[in-house]
Order: sequence, then C-alpha cells, then structure tokens
Amino acid sequence: MEMKRLKVSAEGKHVYDIVIEQGFGDLARQLQFLDLGRKKVCIVTEDRVAGYYLQEVESLLLPQCASLKTFVFPHGEANKNLRTVEDLYRFLIEHEFDRKDLLLALGGGVTGDLTGFAASSYLRGIDFVQVPTSLLAQVDSSIGGKTGVDFDAHKNMVGAFYMPKLVYINIDTLRTLSDRQYHSGLGEVIKHGLICDLDYYHWIWDHRKEIAARDPEVMASMVEGSCRIKRAVVEKDPKEQGIRALLNFGHTFGHSVEKLMDFQLTHGECVGIGATLAAEISRARSYISDQDYQEIRELFDYFDFPALPDQVSVDRILEETRHDKKMEHGLIKFILLDQMGRAGIHRDVSQEEMKASFRAYRP
Amino acid sequence: MEMKRLKVSAEGKHVYDIVIEQGFGDLARQLQFLDLGRKKVCIVTEDRVAGYYLQEVESLLLPQCASLKTFVFPHGEANKNLRTVEDLYRFLIEHEFDRKDLLLALGGGVTGDLTGFAASSYLRGIDFVQVPTSLLAQVDSSIGGKTGVDFDAHKNMVGAFYMPKLVYINIDTLRTLSDRQYHSGLGEVIKHGLICDLDYYHWIWDHRKEIAARDPEVMASMVEGSCRIKRAVVEKDPKEQGIRALLNFGHTFGHSVEKLMDFQLTHGECVGIGATLAAEISRARSYISDQDYQEIRELFDYFDFPALPDQVSVDRILEETRHDKKMEHGLIKFILLDQMGRAGIHRDVSQEEMKASFRAYRP
Repeated sequence: MEMKRLKVSAEGKHVYDIVIEQGFGDLARQLQFLDLGRKKVCIVTEDRVAGYYLQEVESLLLPQCASLKTFVFPHGEANKNLRTVEDLYRFLIEHEFDRKDLLLALGGGVTGDLTGFAASSYLRGIDFVQVPTSLLAQVDSSIGGKTGVDFDAHKNMVGAFYMPKLVYINIDTLRTLSDRQYHSGLGEVIKHGLICDLDYYHWIWDHRKEIAARDPEVMASMVEGSCRIKRAVVEKDPKEQGIRALLNFGHTFGHSVEKLMDFQLTHGECVGIGATLAAEISRARSYISDQDYQEIRELFDYFDFPALPDQVSVDRILEETRHDKKMEHGLIKFILLDQMGRAGIHRDVSQEEMKASFRAYRP
Repeated sequence: MEMKRLKVSAEGKHVYDIVIEQGFGDLARQLQFLDLGRKKVCIVTEDRVAGYYLQEVESLLLPQCASLKTFVFPHGEANKNLRTVEDLYRFLIEHEFDRKDLLLALGGGVTGDLTGFAASSYLRGIDFVQVPTSLLAQVDSSIGGKTGVDFDAHKNMVGAFYMPKLVYINIDTLRTLSDRQYHSGLGEVIKHGLICDLDYYHWIWDHRKEIAARDPEVMASMVEGSCRIKRAVVEKDPKEQGIRALLNFGHTFGHSVEKLMDFQLTHGECVGIGATLAAEISRARSYISDQDYQEIRELFDYFDFPALPDQVSVDRILEETRHDKKMEHGLIKFILLDQMGRAGIHRDVSQEEMKASFRAYRP
C-alpha cells in the first residue's frame, strides 16, 4: 500500500500529521523533523506490546537519537492510573529528561492516554508522539489530543488536552491483535459511520467480510476513513465544548458498564453495548427505523460483540451514569442518532427511556 | 485607593484580568462574568489562610453561586504534592463537580500552584480563579499560568501551563503576613526591577522604608508595578520558550538551596540568596559594577533576607543544580544581569565561576 498522510489542524493552524504505513520502516525518517539527534527519547510501552514490537522499534530509533530509554509497564486498564504516571516521572527524572526531550507512546489506548498525560505534565509539558498499535488507538484515542488516566476507578477523570507531534500508524500491528481486541476496536469504527457519515457506514456493512478477515488494503482504507472522520470532528471542536461530544455516542452507558464489569470487558466492547442501547432509544423515539436498528445489532453481532452481561443490573448502570463526567449541571448528556449517519446531543432522555432501552435490549 | 485593573493577553487575545483592590468586598461582583449562579464553586485554601479569610470569602460568595464547598489542606510547601491534589480530586468527585464548575484558589503560591494544576487536570480542565494572599503570589506565581506541584522533593516537576479566569488581589491581606513572609515576597519584587526595569528598581530603593513599613498606597503601587513587569514578560513568552526564562533570575541556585534546606527557608528567601549569587557572577564578569553589587546586597539585607546557611555545602548545591529542570541538553541555563535592569540567558557559566561566586558570597 502507499503511505497515507493526513494533516490535523487546531484553530486554523497545522498541529501534527497522521501517517498511515505498513511496517515501522519509515518511523525514524518521519520523526526527523523533531531533530532527534539532539534529543533523549523515551519509548513508553506495556509488556505485551513490548514482546511484539519493542526490539524492532528500538533498533530503528537507536542510531537516530542522542539517547534512547524504554519504560515498560504492565498492560491493562487497571494500570492506567497516577501510580504508573508517577513511576514514569521517576524514570524520566532518573534519566535526566528535560523539556526538550521526547516521549514515544508505543501501544494501545491505555499507553497513548497515559503517555500523553505524563508528557503534558512532566516539567509542564514535553513533546510526545503516538505510535498506536491497537485498532482502537489508531482510529480513535491517538487522534485529537485527549490524554488522561483513571482515578479511583473513574474513567479518564484526570487528564489534559495535549497534542502529539506526530501519529505514526503501522497497519501491520493490527495483525497481532487477538480477535477480541481487533473486533472491539471496530466498535469505534462503526460509531464513526453511525454518527457522522452514512456512506462510510454502508462501506463498513458492505466490506464486513474483508474487515473481519483483516485484509490489509481494506484495513488501511478503514483506518484512513475513521481517521478522517475523527479529524473533522476534533478540528471543529478541539476542547469538546460542542460537537466533539458526539464522539461519545455509546460511551454514556459504555463507561458505566466498563467500570461495573471491573474492566473485564474491553472499552470497545462496552462502547458496542452502549451504542446498541443508544440506538434503541433512537429507535423508540422513531429517529431511526426498526430495520436500521436491527441492522446495527446485526453488524455488532457479526463482529462477535458480547451482550450486556446479566450480572450488571440496570439500576447500577443508571446510578453509575449519574456520576459520569458527561453530566452537566445535573443533566445527563446523551448522544442519540437523530437519523442514520447523524448524531445529536440530547439532555432530555428520561430515566424511564433509559430503562426501556435495557428492556428492549434483553427482554 | 482606587481599584486597578490590568488586562493579560496570550497570543494577542485577551485571556484574563488582574484586579488590585483593598478588601474582598468587590470579589463577587468581579466574578459575575463567570455566571456564578449556575456553578458549583470550590474554595481551595490552607489552614493558616483559612483562619484569616475563609469566613469572609465564604459569606461573600455563598449567596452568589449554585453551591459552595471548601477544601482546606495543611499549609506549607511540603504539602504541594500529588497526594494533596488527589485529595482534592476525591473531594470534587464526591461533590460531583463537573467541567462547568469553578475552583477558587485562596492563599499563597502553594495554594495557587496546586489549585491551578488540579484545575488543569480534573476532567481535562475546569475553570479556576486566583485570589493570592501572599506578596509572592500577588506579584509572581498567580500571574502567567504556570501551575504545578513538587514531586519526590523536585520543585514544580509536575504541572501545566493553564490560565486562570481572573486574578483578584486584595492588598490588605499583605498586612497579616509575618515579617518573614512579607520580606521574602520582596525577593521577587527586587528581581523584577533588576532584570527588566531599572526605574522600578530605583523606585524600590527609594521607597524601601515605606515598603518595609507596609504603607498601603506604596504596597499597591509596588504590586501593580511588579504585575506589569510580569505581565509584559509572560505575554511575550507564555510557554517559557524564550525571554520568560529571565524570570528565573536567582532561581537556579535558589531552587537547589530551597530543596537542600528541606523547605525550611521560604522560596523568596532562597531566591534572594540565588539572586545575590547570580549578581556576584555578573559582577565578576564586569557586567555590573562592584558598587551596584553592593547595593543589591544592601537592599536584600535591608529587608532582612537570610544568608546562605553554613550547613549547605557548595558541592551539594552544584550537584542539585545539575538536576534542576532549567538544564537543557546537559547545559545549565543561567540568568545573569547583563547590566543593571537587564538580564540575559547564559549557558557558558562554568563550574569554577559558580564556585567563585560562593567564595565571594561567604569568604
């Protein structure tokens, strides 16, 4: 495939590029504009990803930078917290990293979010680049500058808006994901189509077989398509004061389920459950047809999305949702589909409507 | 005195105002533009300041906002750390503060820095206002958006550039400072004159008696003068990529002494020591005259600044300085006086020059 490059702006100014490639071969060249030769670089990654890619990335970067260090932390959402960030601060202090040096996040959403927040706050901000290796991170979390960690089991409660200097996407890393990891990333892909771009949604439906088979060309087009949508949204609303909230489609219930399941389901799986429930509320309001709703469920089923586990009670989800940060002045901000391919923010979704969506979901 | 108002811009856009007043009487009115009636407000303060001013500020704000909470932490630099920030996060979560709510930092530099960092990172950023009550905070730390906490005894190692919505300075609070607190704030005032504005420095020299006597009119002019200088510098360089570093005059050694003394000396006292040493290096290089150097020492002596304690060895200070964050690519960035009223950044100060400055300081 040919290298793809998307330019991302904020307030009219170019801020960083997203590069989509097969392989890590071009990484060092793409980083040259950062004057690597004068910098210490710290690769931040987790044990699982390290096993697959660390050696290759290290060997590519080592000849290019003034000094190369690697910080490896245990994988998993449970480690996306301030304790890991503090371990990283300590590591950077120990190796005398200063404001002109660079962090490189190699891994999935947890790695990118955590590294980004550490970069935003170490010495009041040092540069970082994203090298996302999961589908979720490639199409969603690495783009747009949202960084953060969980706090006392509250998702992304602590963080910053802080832009990377580059997002380098190696499509080949998608091949080493488990089926479950890969499919859960598809939750965000389907979401992008549903909320913003009906053509893209239809393209996903039409290519579901190649997508499931991880056809490289189709995956590259899919990642590019989702990156374009995500870029368009974050460029219009970098600080989530307006339409960027639409990206939270599926997240209102999704975050609650994720927390109540104690992170035994993946983020993407929970977003899939939340998206189905939000689509059901949209159907009940006649914003979308019964048939559209059925097709959405079918698509998630096709990609083996799990159902809402029986042990999670509706009442606990609703209570948890009240605590979620998308609550504004006591009102829950709900993202619904106003029609297929277009989402809207709704502050008038009643507790009864929410409960009804669960009854329709698992009658 | 008449209310004074300075407007602060970043990148050509107005960002916030500094209001200088006698009393807290106008605080609620000055906050009205933030739509207080729809907001939860959390006053963040420390036990000592709370004893003086909390009741008055609470009673003024309570009728104006949707809900008012107060978070009090134990005073002192030793509590300017992530543990206190985490306690504050927990407090905000418990009281269901969301992105549209407001923090109000009531206190000195520790309170402002810590509250600002919590505001920058709670839910990726909520609004905050500064109500600085120490001289140091009024003329320096509350202005310019530098926030942060110490980490493993490294000063301001973790933080963010994050602007307040308003800085409300009540000159009267300077009357309740101990002599030591007040005088130590004068370290920054003298620094402003030395690095940027010879007329202002002469004005301080000429008014040293009234300043020491805490004459209200003279204090108001002094705070305004220092705020103007600080504003001019941070407007030109909001992220400390260039001339803002000049404000670190006296801080290179100052921070090291502060840490080695385990915070038994105040920040301002350490800056005074550091400024004297940096002035001595400037004198040794013939950038300023012997007479100018003597006058600087005399001025610090006049305000009862302490000498460098004997128990702190030069070698340990130099070693600590190497770890300081103003080191860039292994070179210590030193701020010297190129002449009286004008500072410059120097990366060529040798270890021998540094040692010589200590020998001249305490022969």
